[in-house]
Amino acid sequence: MVNSDYSLYLVTDRSLLQGRSLLEEVRKAVKGGVSMVQLREKEAGSREFYELAQTLQTELRELGVPLLINDRLDIALAVDADGLHLGQDDLPLPVARSLLGKEKIIGLSINKREEAREGEKMGADYLGVSPVFSTPTKADAPPATGLEFLASLRQEIKIPLVAIGGINKENLKMIKETGADGAAVISALMGASDIEGEARKLRQIWERN
Amino acid sequence: MVNSDYSLYLVTDRSLLQGRSLLEEVRKAVKGGVSMVQLREKEAGSREFYELAQTLQTELRELGVPLLINDRLDIALAVDADGLHLGQDDLPLPVARSLLGKEKIIGLSINKREEAREGEKMGADYLGVSPVFSTPTKADAPPATGLEFLASLRQEIKIPLVAIGGINKENLKMIKETGADGAAVISALMGASDIEGEARKLRQIWERN
Repeated sequence: MVNSDYSLYLVTDRSLLQGRSLLEEVRKAVKGGVSMVQLREKEAGSREFYELAQTLQTELRELGVPLLINDRLDIALAVDADGLHLGQDDLPLPVARSLLGKEKIIGLSINKREEAREGEKMGADYLGVSPVFSTPTKADAPPATGLEFLASLRQEIKIPLVAIGGINKENLKMIKETGADGAAVISALMGASDIEGEARKLRQIWERN
Repeated sequence: MVNSDYSLYLVTDRSLLQGRSLLEEVRKAVKGGVSMVQLREKEAGSREFYELAQTLQTELRELGVPLLINDRLDIALAVDADGLHLGQDDLPLPVARSLLGKEKIIGLSINKREEAREGEKMGADYLGVSPVFSTPTKADAPPATGLEFLASLRQEIKIPLVAIGGINKENLKMIKETGADGAAVISALMGASDIEGEARKLRQIWERN
């Protein structure tokens, strides 16, 4: 198994970059303290997704930070990524596991207790609790789970929990206090003009609390 | 290698079905003479694509007709499909081959002589010459190659050639006369109210010429 530090988990969104280079921004984010990266590409064609993934994987391997691919098992296999992140509407986790193997990280987005239990049972390496707060980044997102749900899930679920959805400098401390293993951020970093500085602030908040 | 009869090759398009069941229509098309099926799903999410592919693969295996998956290597792997059809903007063919193995069919869409040469060199099992006529089904399609291109390609390329794009009862005879190994149809079958009858007519034209 690759090193899996979920504490500050960046999910990419090129639509927020306003012309900035994805590779460059990811590199800066890691410099600022991001410990894991998920490449999420809902619009790209397969070739473009593959090439982006390959570029990021090369860079992140050098930096010692795992790269997970959102949804697309073929892209994860093609670039030998460190793992795959699945939503409830993506490939079934056992199918992905049988093709990707036990050495890779597989995460699963959950929004309900039942999904969390099932995800743990199916052998997910971590659960993305999503969305913990309401968020503008995913238009089709289910209702926010809230902090209490996260904290109560923590009492029951043994595998790592990563909160996602609307997380920023203001509420990160509260995420940490639930006992979650990490916080995933999209817009708080991808939309920042100084991504390294913002990542550093988030890292400091996480470490201090 | 699975049986590969490219002669009458159905490419699916659920948007043309007007409420008819994909599985039912594919079954009828095979009864009428379709020899190969490609599941093409540009809008479906991964889970939906996977479930459709699984249903079709089970059915087509029983009928002895190969199922190819358009673009998505992960879906092809997940359902153990007979093969994969790649466009120029999909995963590179050598990458797909290394993950899918030599026993599976991999086809490549080409629109230019150079792409055809490269496809043959990279080990494609067949080339989809696309679009041979101009077609309404693919909005972003490159210019029609025409019949002369297909005939001249036949002189140079050794692997099977499957023509696609705007093929119907009226022009199928001309496709056969170029020396192509097969004709792929979308709307001529998927848009037909009697898909079995239409497939039978296409099959008869192909066999007679």
